[in-house]
Amino acid sequence: MLDKVLAEAIKTGRLTVHYPTGERRRYGEGSPDAEWVIKDAAAIPRLIRDPWLEMGETYMEGAWDAPKGLALLLEVLLRNIPEDDAPSLLRNIGRYFEQANSRAASRRHVAHHYDLDESLFRMFLDREMHYSCAYFERPNVSLEEAQVAKCEIIRRKLGLKAGQRVLDIGCGWGGLALHLARAVDVHVTGITLSKEQHRVATARAREAGLADRVTFRLEDYREHPGLYDRIVSVGMFEHVGLPHYETFFATVRERLAPGGLALLHHIGRSGGPGRTNPWIRRYIFPGGYNPALSEVLPAIERAGLKVADVEVLKFHYRYTLREWQRRFQMRRAEAVRRWDERFARMWEFYLAACEASFAIGDLVVFHIQLARTLEGLPLTRKAWYAENPEPAGLAERI
Amino acid sequence: MLDKVLAEAIKTGRLTVHYPTGERRRYGEGSPDAEWVIKDAAAIPRLIRDPWLEMGETYMEGAWDAPKGLALLLEVLLRNIPEDDAPSLLRNIGRYFEQANSRAASRRHVAHHYDLDESLFRMFLDREMHYSCAYFERPNVSLEEAQVAKCEIIRRKLGLKAGQRVLDIGCGWGGLALHLARAVDVHVTGITLSKEQHRVATARAREAGLADRVTFRLEDYREHPGLYDRIVSVGMFEHVGLPHYETFFATVRERLAPGGLALLHHIGRSGGPGRTNPWIRRYIFPGGYNPALSEVLPAIERAGLKVADVEVLKFHYRYTLREWQRRFQMRRAEAVRRWDERFARMWEFYLAACEASFAIGDLVVFHIQLARTLEGLPLTRKAWYAENPEPAGLAERI
Repeated sequence: MLDKVLAEAIKTGRLTVHYPTGERRRYGEGSPDAEWVIKDAAAIPRLIRDPWLEMGETYMEGAWDAPKGLALLLEVLLRNIPEDDAPSLLRNIGRYFEQANSRAASRRHVAHHYDLDESLFRMFLDREMHYSCAYFERPNVSLEEAQVAKCEIIRRKLGLKAGQRVLDIGCGWGGLALHLARAVDVHVTGITLSKEQHRVATARAREAGLADRVTFRLEDYREHPGLYDRIVSVGMFEHVGLPHYETFFATVRERLAPGGLALLHHIGRSGGPGRTNPWIRRYIFPGGYNPALSEVLPAIERAGLKVADVEVLKFHYRYTLREWQRRFQMRRAEAVRRWDERFARMWEFYLAACEASFAIGDLVVFHIQLARTLEGLPLTRKAWYAENPEPAGLAERI
Repeated sequence: MLDKVLAEAIKTGRLTVHYPTGERRRYGEGSPDAEWVIKDAAAIPRLIRDPWLEMGETYMEGAWDAPKGLALLLEVLLRNIPEDDAPSLLRNIGRYFEQANSRAASRRHVAHHYDLDESLFRMFLDREMHYSCAYFERPNVSLEEAQVAKCEIIRRKLGLKAGQRVLDIGCGWGGLALHLARAVDVHVTGITLSKEQHRVATARAREAGLADRVTFRLEDYREHPGLYDRIVSVGMFEHVGLPHYETFFATVRERLAPGGLALLHHIGRSGGPGRTNPWIRRYIFPGGYNPALSEVLPAIERAGLKVADVEVLKFHYRYTLREWQRRFQMRRAEAVRRWDERFARMWEFYLAACEASFAIGDLVVFHIQLARTLEGLPLTRKAWYAENPEPAGLAERI
């Protein structure tokens, strides 16, 4: 039965399947060239019934393997068997409830993922613990370099100057806040809902001697008061949920001082509205959603914010995730010892599924620059891409 | 009565009004500092009843003047008395019918404006007759330079290479098509609905010795067949109309070859959906509409096109229009001789009203890069902003 489905579906790339019966079948031609070793026959009817939930579950159970690479296998499957996720009326109602992230639900959802032990994230992230898409000027720069480049392009797009107050909504373990405070003499307030992130970020600011200029708070974006010259939010908007977009942007507008500027960095869908993969929703990001641009813009406009620029970062997250996977694999045995085999398989499936979605261009990262008013903004983008990136404001400090 | 309205409204900038009674009143403080000399008392009740239609009509009739500058006066008024144009349900229905641009209506609307004598446009446009927003690297570059820079940034965003077929939807008098064909060894097909533009563009291609590589056709975008590597559309989307966005983008997708890339350049609203100013609709652009990004994106996504980049050109059209007005004023007497005083006042009001809308940032230009697939696109925008813009493809030709 699976044989029939694959024979019909696989048109792009090649897939070699080893069935539990010992049979080997080849589908399609050319590249990518993936391999799928199905060990447990009981997985097959489940995969046919609900492929995009059961791929993850059966992998976690050890029912199959992908000897040439998990992301590669998922890429071939995704290229040929698109997720049926266009929102119908019924699905829209489902989307609404899945993403009804009240303050209590948000705390629960954040704890589910981000309160996992710091040591897990240390296994695969860069030194500074940036848990979001890096910026690769070329595909072969190191992850460390690419994460610094990401912080620098954000700094440039924010036009950061000494003396400014910066709010970082969803600050993670503090990597971006610390980078900005090192580059420019600004005061940064980072907020997170994860106790673990808050603990780690606070300790890092102290160790870096930046505790007087970098503050971290355990707060919901809906609770945090204050007025800021710059607001940045990297990889947090994915947890806001469609029903809360208007509140999110109204909050950004309210927190922005006159002449203020914000940069929103989030994963989005390039092909229009959809629905979060059910496996990801269950195991990795409950309440999460990666919106299409058409789902974000109405809320921005209604909040009275102006879109000043939209960059679409296309394959940067593919490279980021590939490197995270490589690092995770190097320390996989540790993860199995600390948790168990099932957890390690869950984690590698999560990284691989995301890599595959970015590889085929279904997912991208949007960099949306927002302003209260367009007046005073630079005429062109040239300064963002100039060589010799002298950090803005450094001159004023020396 | 007008005195009371202005006394309450003017909070930003200063306005000095000379009333027909001989009274002089000053409202507000600071800059911009505008002056309004109302000569005909009969204009006042009309201005209060329907300001954004009657400003233009009473100006055309010579009922008032703005000795310090028409755009400046309109800027102060717009900053303090925003157009009430948020679309309600009723207004939405109105918007729909105003913009129902069937093929026949499109021909009529295009003829209304673009079939005006070539000599009129020669009075204020640059040498190459680019009738759209230029790209000012600095506010003080010449219009000629800024129009070349516009063509070059478009060429770079299109990643134009020798041998490619390019479609220019709404080609005007052919300036962009000729520029691209001079810079790179490509074949460009330009389409327009204006007989006058078609005549002039065809003659220019012949005179430039480019008739073998640049073709102009008198055709609707909905009628033109063919497959193109690149599609560009500059300043034409404003005439498409909301009810036709899906058709427009479906057409772009259908005309794009695999791996194809398109660049859409159009005036848009930074503050969300609105309605075309009634005077502009009546006298200048029947059927025209400048959409918010939120009104354009759903149609792009539904057509199966991917947004690869969105630039928001903020004050470039302000500088462009200011220069067009300056040139028009230098040859105003000619315009009065060729047409009449009322026509000249209509034209200068049109240019000034647009300049004021761009000056306050209500109107902007969107540069939307679109692709059939994101694969193969450059990782960063750096190449677009590199110095020494060696035209792409030139190397292959030499």
